[in-house]
Amino acid sequence: MSKIKWALLGGGAGSLIGIVHRIAAGMGDDYQLVGGVFNHEPAAGLQFARDLELDLRRTYADIDAFIAGEMALPADERVKVVTIATPNYLHYEMASKLIQAGFHVICEKPVTFRAAEARSLASLLKSRQQIFAVTHTYTGYPMVRQMRGMIAAGMIGPIQKVDARYYQGWINAVIHEPARRKTVWRLDPAKGGPSCCIGDIGVHAFNLIEYTTGLQVEQALADVDTLYPDNELDVDGSVLLRFGKGVKGVLCASQIATAEENNLSLAVYGRTGGLRWAQENPNQLEFLQEGKPLSVIKPGHAFNLPEARAATKMPPGHPEGIFDAMGNIYRGVARAINGLPVDPGAFPDIEAGVRGMRFVEAALDSSRNGNVWVTI
Amino acid sequence: MSKIKWALLGGGAGSLIGIVHRIAAGMGDDYQLVGGVFNHEPAAGLQFARDLELDLRRTYADIDAFIAGEMALPADERVKVVTIATPNYLHYEMASKLIQAGFHVICEKPVTFRAAEARSLASLLKSRQQIFAVTHTYTGYPMVRQMRGMIAAGMIGPIQKVDARYYQGWINAVIHEPARRKTVWRLDPAKGGPSCCIGDIGVHAFNLIEYTTGLQVEQALADVDTLYPDNELDVDGSVLLRFGKGVKGVLCASQIATAEENNLSLAVYGRTGGLRWAQENPNQLEFLQEGKPLSVIKPGHAFNLPEARAATKMPPGHPEGIFDAMGNIYRGVARAINGLPVDPGAFPDIEAGVRGMRFVEAALDSSRNGNVWVTI
Amino acid sequence: MSKIKWALLGGGAGSLIGIVHRIAAGMGDDYQLVGGVFNHEPAAGLQFARDLELDLRRTYADIDAFIAGEMALPADERVKVVTIATPNYLHYEMASKLIQAGFHVICEKPVTFRAAEARSLASLLKSRQQIFAVTHTYTGYPMVRQMRGMIAAGMIGPIQKVDARYYQGWINAVIHEPARRKTVWRLDPAKGGPSCCIGDIGVHAFNLIEYTTGLQVEQALADVDTLYPDNELDVDGSVLLRFGKGVKGVLCASQIATAEENNLSLAVYGRTGGLRWAQENPNQLEFLQEGKPLSVIKPGHAFNLPEARAATKMPPGHPEGIFDAMGNIYRGVARAINGLPVDPGAFPDIEAGVRGMRFVEAALDSSRNGNVWVTI
Amino acid sequence: MSKIKWALLGGGAGSLIGIVHRIAAGMGDDYQLVGGVFNHEPAAGLQFARDLELDLRRTYADIDAFIAGEMALPADERVKVVTIATPNYLHYEMASKLIQAGFHVICEKPVTFRAAEARSLASLLKSRQQIFAVTHTYTGYPMVRQMRGMIAAGMIGPIQKVDARYYQGWINAVIHEPARRKTVWRLDPAKGGPSCCIGDIGVHAFNLIEYTTGLQVEQALADVDTLYPDNELDVDGSVLLRFGKGVKGVLCASQIATAEENNLSLAVYGRTGGLRWAQENPNQLEFLQEGKPLSVIKPGHAFNLPEARAATKMPPGHPEGIFDAMGNIYRGVARAINGLPVDPGAFPDIEAGVRGMRFVEAALDSSRNGNVWVTI
Repeated sequence: MSKIKWALLGGGAGSLIGIVHRIAAGMGDDYQLVGGVFNHEPAAGLQFARDLELDLRRTYADIDAFIAGEMALPADERVKVVTIATPNYLHYEMASKLIQAGFHVICEKPVTFRAAEARSLASLLKSRQQIFAVTHTYTGYPMVRQMRGMIAAGMIGPIQKVDARYYQGWINAVIHEPARRKTVWRLDPAKGGPSCCIGDIGVHAFNLIEYTTGLQVEQALADVDTLYPDNELDVDGSVLLRFGKGVKGVLCASQIATAEENNLSLAVYGRTGGLRWAQENPNQLEFLQEGKPLSVIKPGHAFNLPEARAATKMPPGHPEGIFDAMGNIYRGVARAINGLPVDPGAFPDIEAGVRGMRFVEAALDSSRNGNVWVTI
Repeated sequence: MSKIKWALLGGGAGSLIGIVHRIAAGMGDDYQLVGGVFNHEPAAGLQFARDLELDLRRTYADIDAFIAGEMALPADERVKVVTIATPNYLHYEMASKLIQAGFHVICEKPVTFRAAEARSLASLLKSRQQIFAVTHTYTGYPMVRQMRGMIAAGMIGPIQKVDARYYQGWINAVIHEPARRKTVWRLDPAKGGPSCCIGDIGVHAFNLIEYTTGLQVEQALADVDTLYPDNELDVDGSVLLRFGKGVKGVLCASQIATAEENNLSLAVYGRTGGLRWAQENPNQLEFLQEGKPLSVIKPGHAFNLPEARAATKMPPGHPEGIFDAMGNIYRGVARAINGLPVDPGAFPDIEAGVRGMRFVEAALDSSRNGNVWVTI
Repeated sequence: MSKIKWALLGGGAGSLIGIVHRIAAGMGDDYQLVGGVFNHEPAAGLQFARDLELDLRRTYADIDAFIAGEMALPADERVKVVTIATPNYLHYEMASKLIQAGFHVICEKPVTFRAAEARSLASLLKSRQQIFAVTHTYTGYPMVRQMRGMIAAGMIGPIQKVDARYYQGWINAVIHEPARRKTVWRLDPAKGGPSCCIGDIGVHAFNLIEYTTGLQVEQALADVDTLYPDNELDVDGSVLLRFGKGVKGVLCASQIATAEENNLSLAVYGRTGGLRWAQENPNQLEFLQEGKPLSVIKPGHAFNLPEARAATKMPPGHPEGIFDAMGNIYRGVARAINGLPVDPGAFPDIEAGVRGMRFVEAALDSSRNGNVWVTI
Repeated sequence: MSKIKWALLGGGAGSLIGIVHRIAAGMGDDYQLVGGVFNHEPAAGLQFARDLELDLRRTYADIDAFIAGEMALPADERVKVVTIATPNYLHYEMASKLIQAGFHVICEKPVTFRAAEARSLASLLKSRQQIFAVTHTYTGYPMVRQMRGMIAAGMIGPIQKVDARYYQGWINAVIHEPARRKTVWRLDPAKGGPSCCIGDIGVHAFNLIEYTTGLQVEQALADVDTLYPDNELDVDGSVLLRFGKGVKGVLCASQIATAEENNLSLAVYGRTGGLRWAQENPNQLEFLQEGKPLSVIKPGHAFNLPEARAATKMPPGHPEGIFDAMGNIYRGVARAINGLPVDPGAFPDIEAGVRGMRFVEAALDSSRNGNVWVTI
């Protein structure tokens, strides 16, 4: 199977997320980066292409030039899949154009600004055979896939309680001084969208809940916090959750949990057991069982579920990390593009994107309307 | 200083909580157990007294006989302080009578069934010099006291976020079958009071929040869960919290977090740092600071705060446990009874009891009334 | 069963180890402290007895007065068991006299200065029915007993590798300045005996190995370190071990592992699995099994072995600590004194004391003779 | 700067180590894989090249063909650096030829079978400007580099104690049955060399000690274990170490530590503090200091040392793993090849390889000669 021709929008020189996408794409032997739009400044984009020894003719000035240029090439030379790693406010427009031109798309989250836009992308995709993946990177960890598989296999029984936390501290460093806030695009609604904390990290926790449990959140009641009246966007929020069949849960997110790094954790309890996972120690899945000692499941073992084994490259005890998680998502997308069978948990698709955006809006609505239940 | 004459109500043969109180009282050289009402069956109570080689004349049949008998003795022979370790529904009556007869009281939590009763005890105590302690045992851990002291000293700056969780799994083992539920007095409103999960463990988390932060919860919005419609009392609940000055928080409690043991944890974040503590690893306090590595504070060090040092008997690295925590509370009560200076955090007093009961009622009211904010 | 009349030698006011022994003895309802020799200054001893409200007539000036005084009492009033908590150099003399007078003895470790002395105590005890316990406190932890039981039950198969470490840092604070060394009796051969590090803590690790594995160390090859030529006693040492049947192991101890607290850990590997335990996190026993996830065993569960359950007072998740470990040893001694059936692992006896002393001597001999194998 | 033309010897289809090298090389934008000898079966090597879409003319049948073919190309098209990832017994021959032909070399460990061979490579390299790196991967972890930097900066004072352990369990699965042993090339002296455990993993622990401390091991006294008399090679070993200036240490390695995964840990204690690191939790470095709480240092922070920051791509809390560690070594080699300034800790060079081989031989000699000290 020859490598998939791949392009990148954004993610050029100096972009951290661009490095993550390029390393992840390079981890298998699936992708070949052939071009893209690396910078809104064409000269910077070209320099980046030169540094990577890419064909400069396939480094374009903007999305329209990209589509025109690639469509002019013979089909087997043309880019097949495009990663959108630009600032959030460009996601919707770029994704729409790419889908309509027939490209597969890998899109950074949040997939759009508003849930309605995400739904519109979902409609566009409906009758097409194109792949659309949203990079909820944490779903690529082997132990997250093991957790999903164990729950699906009934290994903790019917779910009765869900708890997710995502605590960071980085906004604390800027939030207390209005002048410093302006340096952070995430706090600017024009660039980051209608939510900071819930939209940036709460949505990851939400996606992780639905990904691992297979349940859907039906209702949310939220209390978000902007910390200061002159700060427009939420930097913290706690959300009560109701799933179907009487299952309840809670999702807490914060960017003012001072000096926390990237403390995302998830606990799911069922009738016969529970599972706990934490992103800062990702190679460990705690399995609680009624009447038995705690089990600690780690990647690389033959006794792990097939989806966890497929997401692990190394033998036990060799810690794989965040690049590997993203790499697993890229690998799943490559299989889908190549028409190979793909596990439903191999990558988050547009439906995951739609639900994430809907959750963000529901949380903000609930909080705005006096902490009432809002249906998702 | 001679030992304080001490009596026990409840806590006789076969009682776990009685063992905890007796070991705790014996850890210093402060208390001498002289008698009490050890069982509602007088014969069983006498046998227990015989086993402990106590003076059988001071083993009484009920609270009234106890008060009459002790008041008949010369003041210096009389019991000075009484621990109430009976089932919850007896707390209020016993505490009232003991206060009015002039005894110091150490009372298991919940201090009463209803907040109004707790307030009535507080009124009774108002003009008296008697000590009244509620055994919120977790406040006796050295690292909880260190946490309280560090927050009071401004070491994390003004508080901006609070997160407390208390997850157990033991109710899971009985909740799914109505017949098994009946074996658990905690699920019977007549014996356990109007709340199971919030009243039994949520209130510990609440007390710990107010104890360590020095803040008061002003409003609560709760969603509690009985899991089954034919189960009357809550076995799980998530509570959004609002403190004064715009500080927000969350308190989650569950007894259906299957196979969890006694997983109580607290995180408090301020403008310059944060503190994290977990009961199952009680000798460790994590201190997060903006721009510095994580510090892990442990008991027994000369650099710890005086209140933590006073609550530690052993050098660093020798784990002290739950008995020591309760022992520290007993030690504080003994100092107070002996008229020695007492740190305000030395033991939880009736005000802590009142607030705890008020919290339980507020959480239940919020949930019952459609998840609305209720003022505490 | 009435309480056992108990006396303490040493362990008076200001003694940490005295507190540990008194709390431990008080944890069950087994012992009643009636007297002893609390201080080499008789006045200080009497004041201590007054503080504890003991009968002053049973507070003696020295060991001979103690024996004479107690033997003069009717047998049923007489002290039955005596704890030796004096400086090391007094252990042998006191233990000899007490055994010959017919008392049961609980002796702090090291049981004597020299292995020959320990063997002489063992001879004295041979034909007598008296109990002699050495307080290797760590054998009292529930998870150490679980480990011993699991190994005995073959749950890790035949042993093939043993690793024990005991790292402390406290000597580092004094070792670098000759003047400060003099403030530490452990560094003075006249008071502490021929070894500091191996004798003080290495012997605990040795005892723990033999206690949990049921194996006997046959040969040792050691390299000890005094750090400075003008420091007489070892403050660090690594010892290669050979057990029977080709099993090998290693024991490392240090008091110059700067800023370590009391970091004692043990790992034992057998043909089908392994077990790991660490004293600073004593309520956790890691069970490794070929082809299965790691299990974490904690106290208080019904599925634990009987010897672990017997050593646990609280339900799961309530951390018990070092006092409880010592308390379990006292409890075992009480059962033995009362003629009740006693698990062979209930407390370390004189044989454990003899072997410990022999190990210390073997380690020093090996090191002194150029790091050669010495038979134990 | 254009990409460095890179070739791989071994590491073709089905090779785990080949994947690690290719992912690591792809993590920066430094290398371009152009060819190599991927398999001793030329057809299999060509298929692999086809799968990777490489130029088939640069896929050679053996090392001699590789050298001849590349030397025939113009210098700027020629491979510049070659990674040796073949079975151990080929390392020496291949490395010698490559060095003499003028290639830079990246060599898997053990660099050779015998120390004399490693020294011969070192001699060859002496007057040349070629880079020779040995992939002791663990030196690429950011926190290992932080540890090295902190020790060099005197942050724990003069070293006084070193402890390294490397415990795996994988050999346990085959060692007990002679028939199964034969399936493992590591246990065959003809393929794996004169040592299994010490040569395979002990040498990693040895390298890590010298890398982080800057000290050199001067003498070793070892006791290795083959477990069965009819098993030729060591599967376990404990080694006492002596550094210069009276510093002592211990290094323990085992492949029969049943069910251990890849448990490599290192503790170094100095006069003012200590540092602890463990490979299975590689993003955490524990810093112990006399008179201060434990600090936990993690990657990605601005306050970390430059060498740790240079080895980290992600912000704090995003776990990087084993590929990143290897990637950091590749990155260092690329800088050296490109003539850019390189930190002395950027990659292990031939001297590290020589010392490692010398350590293996010393450990085996010590054990063979009755556990005597052997100078390194």
